[in-house]
Amino acid sequence: MSPKSGTPKKNLMLFSGRSHVELAEEVAKNLNVTVTPQTVHTFANGEIYVRYQESVRGTDAFVIQSFSPPINEWLMEQLIMIDALKRGSAKRITAIVPFYPYSRQDKKHKGREPISARLVADLFKTAGADRILTVDLHTAQIQGFFDGPVDHLHGQNVLADYINEHYSDHDITVVSPDSGRVRLAEKWAQQLGDRPIAFIHKTRDPDKPNQAVANRVVGDVKGRLCVLIDDMIDTGGTISKAVEALLDQGASDVVIATTHGILSDPATERLANSKAREVIVTNTLPIPEEKRFPTMTVLSIAPLLARAIQEVFEDGSVTSLFDGSA
Amino acid sequence: MSPKSGTPKKNLMLFSGRSHVELAEEVAKNLNVTVTPQTVHTFANGEIYVRYQESVRGTDAFVIQSFSPPINEWLMEQLIMIDALKRGSAKRITAIVPFYPYSRQDKKHKGREPISARLVADLFKTAGADRILTVDLHTAQIQGFFDGPVDHLHGQNVLADYINEHYSDHDITVVSPDSGRVRLAEKWAQQLGDRPIAFIHKTRDPDKPNQAVANRVVGDVKGRLCVLIDDMIDTGGTISKAVEALLDQGASDVVIATTHGILSDPATERLANSKAREVIVTNTLPIPEEKRFPTMTVLSIAPLLARAIQEVFEDGSVTSLFDGSA
Amino acid sequence: MSPKSGTPKKNLMLFSGRSHVELAEEVAKNLNVTVTPQTVHTFANGEIYVRYQESVRGTDAFVIQSFSPPINEWLMEQLIMIDALKRGSAKRITAIVPFYPYSRQDKKHKGREPISARLVADLFKTAGADRILTVDLHTAQIQGFFDGPVDHLHGQNVLADYINEHYSDHDITVVSPDSGRVRLAEKWAQQLGDRPIAFIHKTRDPDKPNQAVANRVVGDVKGRLCVLIDDMIDTGGTISKAVEALLDQGASDVVIATTHGILSDPATERLANSKAREVIVTNTLPIPEEKRFPTMTVLSIAPLLARAIQEVFEDGSVTSLFDGSA
Amino acid sequence: MSPKSGTPKKNLMLFSGRSHVELAEEVAKNLNVTVTPQTVHTFANGEIYVRYQESVRGTDAFVIQSFSPPINEWLMEQLIMIDALKRGSAKRITAIVPFYPYSRQDKKHKGREPISARLVADLFKTAGADRILTVDLHTAQIQGFFDGPVDHLHGQNVLADYINEHYSDHDITVVSPDSGRVRLAEKWAQQLGDRPIAFIHKTRDPDKPNQAVANRVVGDVKGRLCVLIDDMIDTGGTISKAVEALLDQGASDVVIATTHGILSDPATERLANSKAREVIVTNTLPIPEEKRFPTMTVLSIAPLLARAIQEVFEDGSVTSLFDGSA
Amino acid sequence: MSPKSGTPKKNLMLFSGRSHVELAEEVAKNLNVTVTPQTVHTFANGEIYVRYQESVRGTDAFVIQSFSPPINEWLMEQLIMIDALKRGSAKRITAIVPFYPYSRQDKKHKGREPISARLVADLFKTAGADRILTVDLHTAQIQGFFDGPVDHLHGQNVLADYINEHYSDHDITVVSPDSGRVRLAEKWAQQLGDRPIAFIHKTRDPDKPNQAVANRVVGDVKGRLCVLIDDMIDTGGTISKAVEALLDQGASDVVIATTHGILSDPATERLANSKAREVIVTNTLPIPEEKRFPTMTVLSIAPLLARAIQEVFEDGSVTSLFDGSA
Amino acid sequence: MSPKSGTPKKNLMLFSGRSHVELAEEVAKNLNVTVTPQTVHTFANGEIYVRYQESVRGTDAFVIQSFSPPINEWLMEQLIMIDALKRGSAKRITAIVPFYPYSRQDKKHKGREPISARLVADLFKTAGADRILTVDLHTAQIQGFFDGPVDHLHGQNVLADYINEHYSDHDITVVSPDSGRVRLAEKWAQQLGDRPIAFIHKTRDPDKPNQAVANRVVGDVKGRLCVLIDDMIDTGGTISKAVEALLDQGASDVVIATTHGILSDPATERLANSKAREVIVTNTLPIPEEKRFPTMTVLSIAPLLARAIQEVFEDGSVTSLFDGSA
Repeated sequence: MSPKSGTPKKNLMLFSGRSHVELAEEVAKNLNVTVTPQTVHTFANGEIYVRYQESVRGTDAFVIQSFSPPINEWLMEQLIMIDALKRGSAKRITAIVPFYPYSRQDKKHKGREPISARLVADLFKTAGADRILTVDLHTAQIQGFFDGPVDHLHGQNVLADYINEHYSDHDITVVSPDSGRVRLAEKWAQQLGDRPIAFIHKTRDPDKPNQAVANRVVGDVKGRLCVLIDDMIDTGGTISKAVEALLDQGASDVVIATTHGILSDPATERLANSKAREVIVTNTLPIPEEKRFPTMTVLSIAPLLARAIQEVFEDGSVTSLFDGSA
Repeated sequence: MSPKSGTPKKNLMLFSGRSHVELAEEVAKNLNVTVTPQTVHTFANGEIYVRYQESVRGTDAFVIQSFSPPINEWLMEQLIMIDALKRGSAKRITAIVPFYPYSRQDKKHKGREPISARLVADLFKTAGADRILTVDLHTAQIQGFFDGPVDHLHGQNVLADYINEHYSDHDITVVSPDSGRVRLAEKWAQQLGDRPIAFIHKTRDPDKPNQAVANRVVGDVKGRLCVLIDDMIDTGGTISKAVEALLDQGASDVVIATTHGILSDPATERLANSKAREVIVTNTLPIPEEKRFPTMTVLSIAPLLARAIQEVFEDGSVTSLFDGSA
Repeated sequence: MSPKSGTPKKNLMLFSGRSHVELAEEVAKNLNVTVTPQTVHTFANGEIYVRYQESVRGTDAFVIQSFSPPINEWLMEQLIMIDALKRGSAKRITAIVPFYPYSRQDKKHKGREPISARLVADLFKTAGADRILTVDLHTAQIQGFFDGPVDHLHGQNVLADYINEHYSDHDITVVSPDSGRVRLAEKWAQQLGDRPIAFIHKTRDPDKPNQAVANRVVGDVKGRLCVLIDDMIDTGGTISKAVEALLDQGASDVVIATTHGILSDPATERLANSKAREVIVTNTLPIPEEKRFPTMTVLSIAPLLARAIQEVFEDGSVTSLFDGSA
Repeated sequence: MSPKSGTPKKNLMLFSGRSHVELAEEVAKNLNVTVTPQTVHTFANGEIYVRYQESVRGTDAFVIQSFSPPINEWLMEQLIMIDALKRGSAKRITAIVPFYPYSRQDKKHKGREPISARLVADLFKTAGADRILTVDLHTAQIQGFFDGPVDHLHGQNVLADYINEHYSDHDITVVSPDSGRVRLAEKWAQQLGDRPIAFIHKTRDPDKPNQAVANRVVGDVKGRLCVLIDDMIDTGGTISKAVEALLDQGASDVVIATTHGILSDPATERLANSKAREVIVTNTLPIPEEKRFPTMTVLSIAPLLARAIQEVFEDGSVTSLFDGSA
Repeated sequence: MSPKSGTPKKNLMLFSGRSHVELAEEVAKNLNVTVTPQTVHTFANGEIYVRYQESVRGTDAFVIQSFSPPINEWLMEQLIMIDALKRGSAKRITAIVPFYPYSRQDKKHKGREPISARLVADLFKTAGADRILTVDLHTAQIQGFFDGPVDHLHGQNVLADYINEHYSDHDITVVSPDSGRVRLAEKWAQQLGDRPIAFIHKTRDPDKPNQAVANRVVGDVKGRLCVLIDDMIDTGGTISKAVEALLDQGASDVVIATTHGILSDPATERLANSKAREVIVTNTLPIPEEKRFPTMTVLSIAPLLARAIQEVFEDGSVTSLFDGSA
Repeated sequence: MSPKSGTPKKNLMLFSGRSHVELAEEVAKNLNVTVTPQTVHTFANGEIYVRYQESVRGTDAFVIQSFSPPINEWLMEQLIMIDALKRGSAKRITAIVPFYPYSRQDKKHKGREPISARLVADLFKTAGADRILTVDLHTAQIQGFFDGPVDHLHGQNVLADYINEHYSDHDITVVSPDSGRVRLAEKWAQQLGDRPIAFIHKTRDPDKPNQAVANRVVGDVKGRLCVLIDDMIDTGGTISKAVEALLDQGASDVVIATTHGILSDPATERLANSKAREVIVTNTLPIPEEKRFPTMTVLSIAPLLARAIQEVFEDGSVTSLFDGSA
């Protein structure tokens, strides 16, 4: 009689913030679960209220939030959701962060700045997150900001599959839009079949000091299809100028491929008016109708997220999934 | 020669978020300092950037932020400011929080809720705040949510001085707008000179079960000037119905006194249209022109904040300032 | 061959401090387990020694302690018991605290005071408690003092069931003994079927300033059965004066209902001599024979504790159990 | 005008728990300060309340408590005092613990035991102590239980000075009362001028297995004055049997020297009835009149504590004070 | 459909640093598992690189490292291995430390020293170890340095079984090589069947102050087989002098038994040249061929480690295994 | 009389590990202090022992260690030194790390790897370091691995001043040795006066898949002096091949400038045999005679470190020193 015994069960529950419900629904469908129903609203003074409508005791909780504007609202919402799970006795809490907020403030660029990307990692920890699942971090070092497991998925794979399917018979050059992404371009070039690479070099012409910055194309693009890659497009200034420079240098065509479509104004206008043949993004961030344009293709990241969640839940070997880099 | 010696100095620096610059400036003026200049802006995708324009090494830093909407924006801004101070080697960091955000979510009202007020305290700690200075917490227990010193100022004193000056010759009854603030009314009653108290009781009439909630006045208000008190006015529904009920019960006049003027819509409309003789608030939250109306009086909390900062900086005995309740 | 696999088991073990063994035994019986045998004694110099007589590896441990005097002895005993479980590789440790010690020191009432209720939460955490299970906290905000799940049970339900069974055909008024428990009275009133409420108002009479504090009954009690409620009875002064005041105001009878019977001297004398018809308490604290008197009824909290432990162990949906407020 | 500057001051304040006020007063006198006045009492249900009557902001606080029975009461009192100092903005908090509680439970002697001495260190840390100042730990490893500076004073010096003054012309043998303190005896032997040592060996005689434990004296004691040393005397059983054994073996006289006089019953009776010439202890623990007897000498530890506090306050080189072993 | 359910599995994986691969292999064989394959190497500049070749998600990981020179290399290697397991989502991580490094620096012997043994415990915790499994700590208090479960195995049992088997018919005296291990000798004496004990006393002769330290044998060894015990042999100076002193005092023979064979130069030379009949050690540390000599016997600790790992994995009652002292 | 007051002093003490004493001495000389004397040695079994010969109470401690091989030895030594300072009551501890160890393992390059650079930051924190002062981190994100202030000095300034002095009249092209340092080359190009940049592109030729990696020079180098830059030179393979490629492409001359001269074998041989005109490094790492060769120039980082320490000690505005990027 003495102690009471049993066999533990484990169950997976998916939770979603309000920033990108479509993505959460799609992930749920891929997982064959439903998003856990909740009561959530924002009071008139801006405070957010969350309550789950089902017991979360002992659950393996996955909380998805996408960081489009208003980014701080969604961050606080996810932290509050995590706090409610912690206090409601969830067994393990994974914050799913398809686009990691403040990822560009990952160091002090100048003195007396914050390192907001580290702060975000600490806030997740403080609220109660045990682990983070994210896609294409701006710099991979951000993994080290979190004191716990970070599963780092590669949206690049989704994009590259698409490129391979639609453009593999072209003479492709992979192009980085600035000097900081040349290494990324190398990885793309390998994945697309050992393609040549090039990049756009922003520079003041040393011989003409009074003249503005010039975009110089470094590498061979003449008569070739340029696949212009980056991890994110924000206002689209750099990338649209890169398109122009590539076409000026004789590129036959330009295709843009990027994981995170932030698309802050006037990105849509710039990209729609650019001469890029196709702009390919994923839906790590919501892309509303008004931001879309005819040459834009949006690929879904949901199948990748769903497979990763499944593997995490089952303690499976997900490194294959993450291409050995998780 | 061996070690190098010196005498340490201490210096006070005041920092301000963007939510209520006027209050920070007023505090600075009272302290005879200037708000530290900084570069701060919000990027198109909603991320906030902060950088101080002067060295903050070794400083005793006081960071003021007021929590009007968008409340989560301002919270993240203050956390980022604190992170920048921590990484910039500030010696001690005090978060000044005239109105504590999420103070009403200070417990689980129902199962599977967060305790957001505790989360906020933890976020401040995580970012690097050593102490908190705040005014009239919704419940005093919130002091215990922070693992460190909390200086809890009483805006009630500012309000009560005003009442005493303008209405002391009236027959005053202090009124709580609901059953949860009766104890607060007692404290007010003592401070105004042992005045009688009353409160508004929201109740379903047990004898008429199908009827809606009724506001019953408990206590003697007939022919008396009612000072209707609360810690905050949000949408103003409760308080304006209380005014009505008091006048219905024969009160000669009603004066409303509250520390935090959240004034979410339609508070201004309700209060302006109510028959309250005067509505007295402090400026712990910014009160823009469009929310003001003829019978509103806004008292400044800045002198109180400045005196507290001064005492904290000088390690003075501030308990007198805080009425022995700090 | 490579790794070794298996299916985990989980088992529940119940541990008891020495303060209230009867309660622990009763809980064990309800759970159909036995209290884990241990060696425990206090050395001549006051140090407490604990050792478990069975392995606790991998167990889901529930440690029950009741906080009657000597309260600090029992607190240290429970902390030491938790430490021994942590170091003995228990998997999860729940501190069961039917009456939370130091719950009235939940804020700084004046400057330079401790917040002992927060300190207690931190001590539990430091010793190794993963979660707390408690009954009727003095203020619900104390939940937020612990950085982890707190299951907050409502002894009020046990009391209200008894009242409903024995007094439902009376004209009941629910009465709060002071201004700070009016909201609690509201909840009771609802639970007993939308009964009217009243409360005792301790006040200096503003018109007779030299006179002592008066207990004024606010609300309608004439000819009615007053159910006088509170979370705890300590020395019984307030509550016995309330009985007197209610009967003076024409109440037909008074029944006292309270969760925690601290019953410090001279509570028993006061209550026995009061004209209350019945005094109902639970056994969250031990109530020895010498503190009992003819009109006292002691209801057992053990079935409620046992059901909660069972649900926690099975990760069941206990919110129903906790009336949605856990 | 911009920032506000000043020169910091530092001030030392001494606080005392209620367990051994005389010692605190004596330390204060040695330091030429007064013990900070406070309100402290124990409620009827056993809860302790503390409030300081003077501001403690920015102070270098030293909180003295002595751990006689009821040891858990005094421990909780000191933790609560430290919490109040932390929340009252003391700059640095040193817990002065002349006798470290639970020092004998410094390891698991058997499985499923706590390590209470580590727990105590963690409790001090959690409450807010920055450092610990203690005297003659049972094992020096306890220093490593605290995550911060521990100043470990040697009461042995006070005792040895007395021995040297009164007995230096005798033929002294230093004696350890059991096999675990032989190394301590070595240190004493050096400090008293390279004296020989001996110890009492408790053993079952291997040749007579049914016979009880025998106390065998190992080392030369015949005709010599035995200085029988230990860190503490609790019930006095071991030590009084050691006296007997030494005299049986021909020792001319026995003097007992020990830092901590716990003196649990029946220690006083045993020691008074033993044939020891003198029993020397310090006042790290209070020694009330009823525990004293004619051959007992109580030396004050206060001057040593006061000098250590002074050095800590002034960041002086206290290692000389601590004999290089702090 | 809603949540996704399943039954958790648990699996044991064994990992090994490079310091003592033979031991890890032997443990693996005893457990019927294989050591997890990994890529590990040291770069030219001394940095260590580790990567596991199989998924470690959800595993119960046991990481074995033995602390022979270069001890700091192996410590960093184990910390890095633990970090990789933590970030790779291992469920529980046990650091297996057959010989605990820096165990002799377990206190400040003099002022301004580190407490390196506590530092080591904290480093394990920081890297991500949940628990420690170790053998024969230099002082048992080191258990308390780690904030979590420590399983403390007794290699003494392995040694004593061997002695009992080979020498039980001799007249054994158990001998401690210095005054600090007399208590250990007592435990051995019991385990070998209530044998007499003796020890070597290093002392300056008080009567001849200019003379060097003398090794005096205390206790009866004439004509007896001396089992000279210690927890470790480092350079072998103390132990070889002890052999000499024992034989000088008429011991018939000397057998040395010690758990940890550090055997720093010139230990092998000293021991080989000593007149000890047999030197028995375990392989908690690797003992390469060149350190071995004809009279040395190396017993394997692997079966003990394997049984402990098995019990920890299965949450079994391992106290029996640990002789009630785990 | 009551409390005791005084004016605090602050004093700077410099401590040095054994890896690069010359650098510490030079820093001390620049600061006009002496390195604090200490006892430090490595025991035969590899354990390190440290003790300071002067009191460190209340000091502002700066502990310098350089991370040449054996890198793990030096890391443990610095951690132990920091632990001794913490336990010896140092007021503030700054770890000076001219070359940050494990900086290249700043992310998981593949699954199941550690993030050793984060681990190192955590180990410093655990040992007791309050802040870190370092030079030219491999990636600036490592700043965010430490939870506290990191002062990040730029050795590049020292190198660039030298280049400007000796080569400013040449036609300089700044060259990055691979695709990952192009952005660094941009910064150099600005600092040397808006010079053009180029980089070496390692690539498999897509048209000749069976051929090995080729080093292609991207950018204009013909007839120009190439300043080949990097943060560190380890084995020198990449850099010496870059020299070759540049000269092949018609560069008139090559000068190598790098902060950290790790110079693992066979770096010296490679560089000495390369046709580089000059190889310029700093002494963040010790560069022993046998690693030097005629065309090598070693610049001292000591003046920069000394100025930074001075500013940190005086809470000065060091951002100017750090070029606004600290």
